Amino acid sequence: MTQIISLECNDVRFPTSLKAHGSDAMHTDPDYSCAYVTVRTAGGHQGYGLTFTIGRGTEIVVQAVKSLSFLVLKKRAYEDIFRKFGEFWRELTSESQLRWLGPEKGVMHLAAAAIVNALWDLWARMEKKPLWKLLVDLSTEELLSCIDLRYTSNVMTRNDAFKILMELNPGKEEREAEMRQSGYPAYTTQAGWLGYSPEKVRQQCEDLMQRGFTAFKIKVGQDLQSDIERCKMVREIIGDDKILMVDANQRWEVQEAIDWMKPLAPFKPLWIEEPTSPDDILGHAEIAEALEPLGIGVATGEMCCNRVMFKQFLQAKAMKYCQIDSCRVGGVNEILAILLMAKHCNVKVCPHAGGVGLCEMVQHLQIFDYISISGEKEGRFIEHVAEEHEHFVNPCILNETACYIAPLAPGYSTQFKTSVLEQYAFPYGTEWKRLIANGYFKN
Amino acid sequence: MTQIISLECNDVRFPTSLKAHGSDAMHTDPDYSCAYVTVRTAGGHQGYGLTFTIGRGTEIVVQAVKSLSFLVLKKRAYEDIFRKFGEFWRELTSESQLRWLGPEKGVMHLAAAAIVNALWDLWARMEKKPLWKLLVDLSTEELLSCIDLRYTSNVMTRNDAFKILMELNPGKEEREAEMRQSGYPAYTTQAGWLGYSPEKVRQQCEDLMQRGFTAFKIKVGQDLQSDIERCKMVREIIGDDKILMVDANQRWEVQEAIDWMKPLAPFKPLWIEEPTSPDDILGHAEIAEALEPLGIGVATGEMCCNRVMFKQFLQAKAMKYCQIDSCRVGGVNEILAILLMAKHCNVKVCPHAGGVGLCEMVQHLQIFDYISISGEKEGRFIEHVAEEHEHFVNPCILNETACYIAPLAPGYSTQFKTSVLEQYAFPYGTEWKRLIANGYFKN
Repeated sequence: MTQIISLECNDVRFPTSLKAHGSDAMHTDPDYSCAYVTVRTAGGHQGYGLTFTIGRGTEIVVQAVKSLSFLVLKKRAYEDIFRKFGEFWRELTSESQLRWLGPEKGVMHLAAAAIVNALWDLWARMEKKPLWKLLVDLSTEELLSCIDLRYTSNVMTRNDAFKILMELNPGKEEREAEMRQSGYPAYTTQAGWLGYSPEKVRQQCEDLMQRGFTAFKIKVGQDLQSDIERCKMVREIIGDDKILMVDANQRWEVQEAIDWMKPLAPFKPLWIEEPTSPDDILGHAEIAEALEPLGIGVATGEMCCNRVMFKQFLQAKAMKYCQIDSCRVGGVNEILAILLMAKHCNVKVCPHAGGVGLCEMVQHLQIFDYISISGEKEGRFIEHVAEEHEHFVNPCILNETACYIAPLAPGYSTQFKTSVLEQYAFPYGTEWKRLIANGYFKN
Repeated sequence: MTQIISLECNDVRFPTSLKAHGSDAMHTDPDYSCAYVTVRTAGGHQGYGLTFTIGRGTEIVVQAVKSLSFLVLKKRAYEDIFRKFGEFWRELTSESQLRWLGPEKGVMHLAAAAIVNALWDLWARMEKKPLWKLLVDLSTEELLSCIDLRYTSNVMTRNDAFKILMELNPGKEEREAEMRQSGYPAYTTQAGWLGYSPEKVRQQCEDLMQRGFTAFKIKVGQDLQSDIERCKMVREIIGDDKILMVDANQRWEVQEAIDWMKPLAPFKPLWIEEPTSPDDILGHAEIAEALEPLGIGVATGEMCCNRVMFKQFLQAKAMKYCQIDSCRVGGVNEILAILLMAKHCNVKVCPHAGGVGLCEMVQHLQIFDYISISGEKEGRFIEHVAEEHEHFVNPCILNETACYIAPLAPGYSTQFKTSVLEQYAFPYGTEWKRLIANGYFKN
């Protein structure tokens, strides 16, 4: 009855480029989108998972999900997947012919993430628990059996991972109670998208402070003078006791990043995010070393493609803040490996969110991390953007101190309302037909 | 008249898994395949390009080519592409929404390579030159205008690249004449696929020596004892004056690679290829350092996904032999950047080949590299596998000393005979219909 009998994948897009939300130095006109996976068991259980995209090309990820689906269909959820999830995960990500197209990166890994995330949602629903609680309640052995640690052993062995988890067993109940009561701190990225005017930035900052935020991220990298002015303005508005972060979205060469950040140092940004190519471990290490005396840390990870790349960023001290993305690497299983390595290397995890469903997912991961892996939340935040949550059955919720409150509904919080597919399936949903007919978009 | 009026992409597969050719520790049953691109101009010129795949998933790359094609269609070949090829290349690989799916890696980059390779074939045909000669005849400025050096400047600046090319200008004519007369040395990978029996390995080695080969690569990594026996046997057959290379196809952890290679050292392999994850720069550096005293170099690159990753492998002394692949990175333009960085860092380039069309392509690249970039060929070889050449209009040819002879037909040697699409288009070509009907394959 737990056999997986169907795996469906939809191309869902929201026309966010009409609003200039989400614009940055490299992604000037994103339409927040996703490949949305639904798995169903013979017994009538369902799981929903997605991988975030920004418009064009979502159809490629949908094709990749379909090409991977033969590895999932007909499997029994517990016997063939959940009870040896690490093994299953490797089958899915290292299939002998498909692995040529990655391995473990790009379209194939985004597609694997959507599938894997749907399977975790299914598992959590079958256990009638929110995902974070499912993870917290797994035994150390069960948790480790979900993780493929291939290629990590020169930095962290399975035994190292085991020790981390065992050490954190004491105090789990208190930390869980704390999460249920106070939630997990968020920072906001909505103070300054590049598409916003100075007036809009000012108004946003003031609104966000009233909503309880104490940490604010703005985009930089298009024009130095306007970056200086924007940082100055935001710092004045938020005051010296609040936190400012800046994000260049891969805009610079290595030396350029160092040179650009020096005149921004007086405004005391906590971190510079994605200063250069997301693949450039040694480049990030060079930037991190140069900016350390200025008190600026390097943050990256949203486009870091797998645990082997994260391993090296951690090893090389190339990231001070580890920004895991819930869909870029191969879903929950691989994120567990990265959370463990970050703890092992003493690096703070501050997940990437925003987009579609990323906030919904990473709240589970970060709450689990606090309870079972890191045991710390000082100086850590989950990114937050207050857009595109209305599409979800169980959207994430922030309390009055801008903390994510621990989600309680069973699953991974990634189920769309049924109206979403009718309206936003691309290109034949009702909203897309209307937008295309009215000339806002071409098909 | 040079406007690109169509871009067609076909899924072409050859049933090589029936023969156990190409089997290795990670890819046990490859069906050598490709996404095959044909571009046509209003004036009736055509260009043919491909990206190599190993069976399942080729349909995903085909979808990606189709999704990228809007960036090519209606462009004028010279004005919009060839005369500012570096700019065009960046548009193709950094489109503001599609780049999320890479950037510059995996399916998207394989698809970009197929398109870019077809455009170079078109250009060479329009100039009535083989690709290598088109490249040799471009001025230094023209050549540099084809290359996007984004993210490389901390290791090699545009000025460094300019100097390399200028320094090699003297002697180009002599080296070209030498290439036309003697060709470029090959090594063979056909001595020992993992699917072969010891008798088959012995027979292959003897045949290959008779055909003039002096360098032989075998696969290792499945079982240490059988690797020892196979290395011992091959070394005995080929003698001490010939070259042996071994290839693990990413099979090992970092320390495991070091430990596994020690007992193989007595058989004096020139290099160990792909000892671990292709993404693990620092891991390869660790292996390289440990094996250097044993006289074993580290070779990798066939799955190195872009110039930023190559840059770091070169920077970290993690590769002694740089095995560029003509389809894995974004086609000829990005390979030019990598060839220049390899020269700048004094690392030998020995291209990955075999598969479908890789030998046909890399011969052009390596001959150009010898004439215009490195000026050296001592201790360098182009990989060779004597399979799947019969499908091409202009297959590569080795002379009696196992050297690739310089191709003379216009283009990049990647045009299939017309019968290929009829027979091997998947799944409706006549051969596939026959194989599926007879139960050899499922569709």
